[in-house]
Amino acid sequence: MSLTYDLVIHNVRIATMAESNSYGLIEDAAICIKDGLIQKVIAQVSRQSGELETESVIDGQGRLLTPGLIDCHTHLVYGGNRANEYEMRLEGASYEEIAKAGGGIVSTVKATRETSKDELFKAAAKRLSYLIEEGVTCIEIKSGYGLDLETEQKMLEVAHELDQFSPIEVSKTFLGAHAVPEEYKGRADEYIDLVCDTIMPELNRQGLIDCVDAFCENIGFNLAQTEKVFAKAKSLGLPVKLHAEQLSDLGGSAMASQYGAWSVDHLEFLSESTINDLKRSKTVATLLPGAFYFLNETQLPPIEALRKSAVPIAIATDSNPGSSPCLSLLLMMNMATTLFKMTPLEALKGVTINAAKALRRDDTLGSIEPGKQADMVLWDVSSPAELSYRIAGNPCFMVIKKGEIILSHEVVNAND
Amino acid sequence: MSLTYDLVIHNVRIATMAESNSYGLIEDAAICIKDGLIQKVIAQVSRQSGELETESVIDGQGRLLTPGLIDCHTHLVYGGNRANEYEMRLEGASYEEIAKAGGGIVSTVKATRETSKDELFKAAAKRLSYLIEEGVTCIEIKSGYGLDLETEQKMLEVAHELDQFSPIEVSKTFLGAHAVPEEYKGRADEYIDLVCDTIMPELNRQGLIDCVDAFCENIGFNLAQTEKVFAKAKSLGLPVKLHAEQLSDLGGSAMASQYGAWSVDHLEFLSESTINDLKRSKTVATLLPGAFYFLNETQLPPIEALRKSAVPIAIATDSNPGSSPCLSLLLMMNMATTLFKMTPLEALKGVTINAAKALRRDDTLGSIEPGKQADMVLWDVSSPAELSYRIAGNPCFMVIKKGEIILSHEVVNAND
Ligand SMILES: [Zn+2]
Ligand SMILES: [Zn+2]
Repeated sequence: MSLTYDLVIHNVRIATMAESNSYGLIEDAAICIKDGLIQKVIAQVSRQSGELETESVIDGQGRLLTPGLIDCHTHLVYGGNRANEYEMRLEGASYEEIAKAGGGIVSTVKATRETSKDELFKAAAKRLSYLIEEGVTCIEIKSGYGLDLETEQKMLEVAHELDQFSPIEVSKTFLGAHAVPEEYKGRADEYIDLVCDTIMPELNRQGLIDCVDAFCENIGFNLAQTEKVFAKAKSLGLPVKLHAEQLSDLGGSAMASQYGAWSVDHLEFLSESTINDLKRSKTVATLLPGAFYFLNETQLPPIEALRKSAVPIAIATDSNPGSSPCLSLLLMMNMATTLFKMTPLEALKGVTINAAKALRRDDTLGSIEPGKQADMVLWDVSSPAELSYRIAGNPCFMVIKKGEIILSHEVVNAND
Repeated sequence: MSLTYDLVIHNVRIATMAESNSYGLIEDAAICIKDGLIQKVIAQVSRQSGELETESVIDGQGRLLTPGLIDCHTHLVYGGNRANEYEMRLEGASYEEIAKAGGGIVSTVKATRETSKDELFKAAAKRLSYLIEEGVTCIEIKSGYGLDLETEQKMLEVAHELDQFSPIEVSKTFLGAHAVPEEYKGRADEYIDLVCDTIMPELNRQGLIDCVDAFCENIGFNLAQTEKVFAKAKSLGLPVKLHAEQLSDLGGSAMASQYGAWSVDHLEFLSESTINDLKRSKTVATLLPGAFYFLNETQLPPIEALRKSAVPIAIATDSNPGSSPCLSLLLMMNMATTLFKMTPLEALKGVTINAAKALRRDDTLGSIEPGKQADMVLWDVSSPAELSYRIAGNPCFMVIKKGEIILSHEVVNAND
């Protein structure tokens, strides 16, 4: 006889993140899981949970339960690192000297091309493990350090294998238009042709692309080149997102919203007039405080205007070797509140429900509601604000993915 | 027959931190340990280590070995947390409303007074475990949330018990002059009398004080009050250190240097003319980038002037619930380099040899040299700069305290 539930977690305080202007807190709650899905959330049942028919039961001992965290913007797969360049710069080397020593994105492209798929997988899996230890249950990973068919494919294959062989889900983004590779120096338009005519169609054919991204910036691609990439994506039926308005306002976000972009990311220089476009196209504003911090930026994204227009704001690590060598989404919540003056509620929404929206997975992820996937984190904190307030000192106690415990700091007893 | 060494670690790259202007790197090194002390550091022996007579041997597999990290300024023992106040402020509450809700240091004093010694120990031991996981092998812990004899004693007893029962060493600092307690409101001089005439002598009699600290600031104590505390410390034969020049320049550091202070800490508003005083008195400049970050400060400490005068600079977490709820010394290295533009070498010196100087333990700690205590960390990084470059993603592989492995990510084999 099969029991009603596979797993019941009781005696928890739940921040459901299912309401727009609150944590959606439910005290003394129990949550019932079957077939990897949330079946039921019950309030005030901490004492009666024994009566629920279930395979196994976890006593949360009053801990906080939140949706699994989602890191919706990362460049987690890459070769090498840029510590040497970081040190040279701080020791006073000029940009020219660093470039001569092979620094900048060029060095990461070179290292990524030279690193085997196995080695790339191993390094990315290690990085991913740090994020999972802090409760991340879904992650976006971009290509963009290959800049040729072979290496872009290798990167997305690693992302695909992480989706298959790690305990969490991966959303795979093709970022061929990340930078102009050395061999196309001065020929950006030709490189964009290669991206559109060869690389994107081939990787799409292989099923390696969930979404197409580009870097629209003076040091990246101009608006016309970016739009060419988006038009090609549209013709292949692929959705888009954009690195935009990080260092200047080229109008990338406005254009992206016309393509119904999933998200526009960075946004320090986003004009307030563009915000209505985002609102209309249901485009998420993804903020990346780690890059803001690491690059000593001073121009803040227009938080108050986004807030007023109720554009969903997501927060992500932007984990990458050049501008955000960061492996903590919790620290990004602290930076979003400390540096951007977002509220702890906005920060938690930014890594749960709004990050799910940025990946268009909010039908199954991002909040604790019946019918959604049972992706959840149990925290050793008494209030959700603590997740933003703390600087390091990971309070993650248990991570559950599709109803399975994938990380725990205690022995789980079967129901007896 | 007793073997020559208790432990040999070979096949490591050592950053000895024993030289003033370099990491003191030794490649392909082996280190020989006996009775908790470093006996010998040998270069180019990765292949011959099997010939060394030792109880056990660790193959470092090319990893980086550094001295154990030292966090020389923390307020690790306290009750409660201030997440609620953090959230109120970000949601727009005024300082008055926060004060009314019991916020500010008052709330931590109240919680610390109300929390039992066992509970304080448990919470502080948990916080300490995060630091140890990142390679901290010696820590300073201050009192200062009691502000009465009973609670200041309770805090220092907890620090003493952490020294005895945790695997690492604790330097105990009496910070009675941290703030004026509510019951002495408007009577700061009378409170200073209580500190000098009653609390300090009694806690000194109990052997609970290694050093005496004070908070010299407009929102703390003035120069005359601070000097009274120092004069009393001197009469008891106790050394001093000071929280100074964080928010304004009251001349605290200049005065402290006359008392031969171990360190002066924060220093954003330190005048360059004071730097020679520090140099003469061998006072360490301890910088606290976590508080600078968390308080959104903009005035940078005078790094270049300190550098020119060769005043030793230490870096610490300032771990505390109000202005730096931080549990990562590695992150402080990143903030010292990212926000203060220190070099990775300066940052590593700041948490090893210079932090040892700040606690006057550089005779036994802070560098890898024959005769010093075998406190060391093995890191999964290829260069020491990586320790500053990374933002989270702890690469600590093994922590050794007095020759004993206190944390390891691999099974250690006995020598066979
Ligand atoms: Zn990015
Ligand atoms: Zn302090």
